[in-house]
Amino acid sequence: MYHYAYPHPAVATDIALFTVRARQLQALLVRRDHAPFRGQWALPGGFVEIDEDLDSCALRELEEETGVSGIYLEQLYTFGAPRRDPRERVITVAYYALAAADHLSIRPAGDAGDAAWHPLATLPRLAFDHERIIAMAHRRLAAKLDYSTIVFNLMPRRFTLSELQQAYEIILEEKLDKRNFRKRVMAYNCMEETGERRRNGGHRPAMLYRVKDPGRIEIVK
Amino acid sequence: MYHYAYPHPAVATDIALFTVRARQLQALLVRRDHAPFRGQWALPGGFVEIDEDLDSCALRELEEETGVSGIYLEQLYTFGAPRRDPRERVITVAYYALAAADHLSIRPAGDAGDAAWHPLATLPRLAFDHERIIAMAHRRLAAKLDYSTIVFNLMPRRFTLSELQQAYEIILEEKLDKRNFRKRVMAYNCMEETGERRRNGGHRPAMLYRVKDPGRIEIVK
Repeated sequence: MYHYAYPHPAVATDIALFTVRARQLQALLVRRDHAPFRGQWALPGGFVEIDEDLDSCALRELEEETGVSGIYLEQLYTFGAPRRDPRERVITVAYYALAAADHLSIRPAGDAGDAAWHPLATLPRLAFDHERIIAMAHRRLAAKLDYSTIVFNLMPRRFTLSELQQAYEIILEEKLDKRNFRKRVMAYNCMEETGERRRNGGHRPAMLYRVKDPGRIEIVK
Repeated sequence: MYHYAYPHPAVATDIALFTVRARQLQALLVRRDHAPFRGQWALPGGFVEIDEDLDSCALRELEEETGVSGIYLEQLYTFGAPRRDPRERVITVAYYALAAADHLSIRPAGDAGDAAWHPLATLPRLAFDHERIIAMAHRRLAAKLDYSTIVFNLMPRRFTLSELQQAYEIILEEKLDKRNFRKRVMAYNCMEETGERRRNGGHRPAMLYRVKDPGRIEIVK
């Protein structure tokens, strides 16, 4: 047992990992194996070890519960409403993370009975305040598209400019002008031509691009 | 005594309150009355009560230690390096806050032996990782100037457009073009003319403006 002169909250991290799959923005959820909210879907996450920093905790919990590692991850916001967890006071440091779906294999383990992608448009009822966390992560991602190169963390190894535009449109939930979009993303200077092209329907085959350095997020204005 | 089956960190909030005074960006610091770092300057802040939400804790600690209330406040980032506090594991949810210096009276109390404004350019050595918190808060504020009307929380009741431009320049640490600046801030539609003018030196008296609704931060593009 651990003893303290005044009450201490528990501290956890939760991770909203997004990808674009099947023309939808999707979040990776785990099905809870334990109370509270047993059987319900939730964000992957768990308690911070006493000697562990917060980013490490988020990466560890994500990998333990879903098998996913090597993704882009950033702290989002700390949620600390006193009764957000029915067990005890749990303050959670929420993260959002991005991955290309084709880079990942999902393998539920640890406290997770199952792990699967769920479209944001048709989320099941989630445990705790995890719907709020996902909504805030979506807003942050949408805002960040506008002034950074963060989107490239969602793209597969090779992609067309139409697929890149689609990713923007799916996250922003609005159509973009093709000409302006291409001008803007080419100015980022983050992509290079692979030299290969892909046929899509009756159109001229589209150039396939790759990201020059996917780990590097730049602020662009 | 409070007992837990596994070790719990302590959780605190710390508040980086900024203002523009004497043509400098300044932060409100308190001098610590207790160990650790006794006698050193630090951000106002303290431990979260077990039934208190995080924003309330930040507002309470700021008021208890400095007498300041009624300011604009927003969560910044959670700092949780395992050894950032020599006593025990303390995770701090950092906030940044903005105020017009002429709205405030400072009154040190609680755990603070003294409270005073310090220019960011000449900060003393601070307790804990509070220099990092201030640096991040400054970066966030500078980024947010670009796409929101957050600056108006720093302005006194009446101000000239030159004073508004000065606030931007002080925070961004760069000179701005007067014509472009005025075009941009007028488009925010956040200010109104007071009808009064102020003489400054030999120039034509400058129109004094006031903010229409200082509590309303808008995202502008």
